[in-house]
Amino acid sequence: MELELTTAKEIVETSQKYNLHAWTVQGSSKPLTMIGGEGIYFWDGEGKRYYDMSSQLVNLNIGYGNSKVIKAIQEQAERLAYSSPSFAIDVRSQLAKMVVELAPDNMGKVFFTLGGSDANENAIKIAKMVTGRYKIFSRYLSYHGSSYGAANLTGEPRRYTCEPGIPGFIKFFDPYVYRSPVPFADEEAASHYYLQQLRDQVIYEGRDAVAAIVVETITGSNGVIIPPKGYLNGIRRICDEFGIMMVCDEVMTGWGRTGEWFAINNFDVKPDIITFAKGITCGYAPIGGVIVSKEIASYFDDRFLNCGLTYSAHPLGCAAGIATIEYYQETGLIAQAKERGVLLGRILEDLKEKHACVGDVRYIGLFSAIELVKNKESKEPLVEFDHDPDKVMSKIIGTLCARGFFTYSHENTIMVAPPLIITEQELESAMAIMDDVLGEVDKSL
Amino acid sequence: MELELTTAKEIVETSQKYNLHAWTVQGSSKPLTMIGGEGIYFWDGEGKRYYDMSSQLVNLNIGYGNSKVIKAIQEQAERLAYSSPSFAIDVRSQLAKMVVELAPDNMGKVFFTLGGSDANENAIKIAKMVTGRYKIFSRYLSYHGSSYGAANLTGEPRRYTCEPGIPGFIKFFDPYVYRSPVPFADEEAASHYYLQQLRDQVIYEGRDAVAAIVVETITGSNGVIIPPKGYLNGIRRICDEFGIMMVCDEVMTGWGRTGEWFAINNFDVKPDIITFAKGITCGYAPIGGVIVSKEIASYFDDRFLNCGLTYSAHPLGCAAGIATIEYYQETGLIAQAKERGVLLGRILEDLKEKHACVGDVRYIGLFSAIELVKNKESKEPLVEFDHDPDKVMSKIIGTLCARGFFTYSHENTIMVAPPLIITEQELESAMAIMDDVLGEVDKSL
Repeated sequence: MELELTTAKEIVETSQKYNLHAWTVQGSSKPLTMIGGEGIYFWDGEGKRYYDMSSQLVNLNIGYGNSKVIKAIQEQAERLAYSSPSFAIDVRSQLAKMVVELAPDNMGKVFFTLGGSDANENAIKIAKMVTGRYKIFSRYLSYHGSSYGAANLTGEPRRYTCEPGIPGFIKFFDPYVYRSPVPFADEEAASHYYLQQLRDQVIYEGRDAVAAIVVETITGSNGVIIPPKGYLNGIRRICDEFGIMMVCDEVMTGWGRTGEWFAINNFDVKPDIITFAKGITCGYAPIGGVIVSKEIASYFDDRFLNCGLTYSAHPLGCAAGIATIEYYQETGLIAQAKERGVLLGRILEDLKEKHACVGDVRYIGLFSAIELVKNKESKEPLVEFDHDPDKVMSKIIGTLCARGFFTYSHENTIMVAPPLIITEQELESAMAIMDDVLGEVDKSL
Repeated sequence: MELELTTAKEIVETSQKYNLHAWTVQGSSKPLTMIGGEGIYFWDGEGKRYYDMSSQLVNLNIGYGNSKVIKAIQEQAERLAYSSPSFAIDVRSQLAKMVVELAPDNMGKVFFTLGGSDANENAIKIAKMVTGRYKIFSRYLSYHGSSYGAANLTGEPRRYTCEPGIPGFIKFFDPYVYRSPVPFADEEAASHYYLQQLRDQVIYEGRDAVAAIVVETITGSNGVIIPPKGYLNGIRRICDEFGIMMVCDEVMTGWGRTGEWFAINNFDVKPDIITFAKGITCGYAPIGGVIVSKEIASYFDDRFLNCGLTYSAHPLGCAAGIATIEYYQETGLIAQAKERGVLLGRILEDLKEKHACVGDVRYIGLFSAIELVKNKESKEPLVEFDHDPDKVMSKIIGTLCARGFFTYSHENTIMVAPPLIITEQELESAMAIMDDVLGEVDKSL
């Protein structure tokens, strides 16, 4: 392979000429270049180094340049780069076994996909096949992917381009306690309120009509909303009562992000279906999947599974997945993320205490968000929902980036989710940048 | 990475225990193992060697073990295995430039995805954004992918699991001349008939309501249906008349399969949008994409592109794509495929002549299908549409496979689409197996 473009200038100009870039106005800004990365850092074409404080799109749990995973990809490319998903191949069998054995003990099999969107697409299809029903419940403040099915699951504005919507996709409200319409005495009271609303809505939609209730175990892009005590168990009860499949989207939260293999392990509840992607290979090679319960697995023993993609269960993804899981196991990285999360929580609480613009901080493991407000008392958001004409949030992200703190924002929240390999010192140094920038936001209020 | 499973028996048993396999009844059959491959051959756990006469899922154009593409993946894994799609990186810029320069000259930019399904998903979204309309036309005998949007584009039964359908997805009839409801004097007459029907249908659906007409340039899985003379130009005219985006799905046909870079080059017509995947990397690493016209590209200069996926434009896919295209260019493989296609056509015509069960053969480049019938005169299909309870077609495919000829069937057609690197001698040897097996089908009539 001949690499033609050698300077950052050429790379950017060629990209602007020929690439359509995701989620952006093409002419509005120069894309950042990435030349390389190591550990929690990447660097651009000018040699400037950045703390990657969002792990790219909350996938790079092991950071850049992990030699074990790279080697696994290289060896698999040599051994067998491609085989269609219908074949049994060694790495595909082995990764399936590893995934099922790490999942909750009610789980039976895994259907590998290529990423998170198609994992959610296939989860819906499986729930519909198993139940013979067609209505799918999911929440307003959720992101499940951008293909039509996943986008219709999604509740936030990224859904709109996939409208008119698919019949039977119903939205319900999130247990977003910080902005709840009524005050709650405690977490249990909040759960009770939201669960009662949900149960009523299921009944109004038809108690025999609902195939699945789909939730991000912990809401990701939409502001790291952690379910209150008892909430997920309550969803489990509603699902059991009406014969509904409980689907937990663990695309962002799975594989160590919250200090557990799956976020669901924080809540002592067993869904029927778990979807995943990101952290299983950290994006080094694409793979995603749908883990299904033993019950669902046996349903398909004598029934046709109407799912498939040319590249699902890709051999490079399988090899990268095995190596990544082994790396988590060998290094104890997931337990370490939990411990490091305690420090992150302390830093975030300090920022909330200190800064007028910080309305709320939410965190679990190394998964966290900072919610910005104009006024701490009234909780008025720094920018209106789906309406930031002055690009206030972009400017804050731009300032962070200029100072070497790379992350992204969504509505009025900033994501903080560094690679799990971050050291205490690195975490403190990076968050000092955040501290400075929040100070400037305070001044602008 | 520790490889745990060493025998074919272990691989298969572990796979049956833990993997959900695509498009199949899980308990009905033992999956075939694949241990390795070289050139046009792969071998299973018993060391049995197969001619891969479908190039897996019509993607493995360069066959197994191409060292140039393997090396590109290995080097890229080392240099930078992952960067989110918003970054400008060298291989992403370079591949975009190569793709646009090889596409028809009205094309401006490319949006990289991860595979074919999501390429089609994004093509629909782009057509809707650009036109401000929501209806999407596609054909009954088509396959565009299995995620919700792509499955609703799809006309054949694999669409049913994604129903109730998305509002505004409209189906029209294919120019399936072999089974047309009326006889035609010539190809132009057939085109005239189908185009008039289509134009009427567009008007009935609302002349200002249709965002896109989506066609596989040459229908793939549904039996390699080659459009009659003037048909695609007619679709172009209808699109121009009503301000509709013409979208050509080249997921299967692009990158040399028909003896041209894109199948569209066989027909002297320029769509607004082309989707692709498969042959650009041959599946060695996943990537797909949406090529858009200069006009569409400039539309997004000052408008938000509401598309994106964590793994789209993956660095490994970009590197594999560059190497694959360079390989096509350095070896002249695509011109060779056209030449080899002449031999394949001759062999297929001989089979049609010789066998009572062969109703029709259709071929272009190394892309072909054999359509089986009970009776050549009445054209009664060997199996009914979407109804083969005795698994007649599976048995034929099983017989071919047992004799070392690997391919797949769809309804009453058998796909023949070997890697483009196949030699004349290999083609003749493989097709001799087909000849034998068709002889047995003849006897069963």
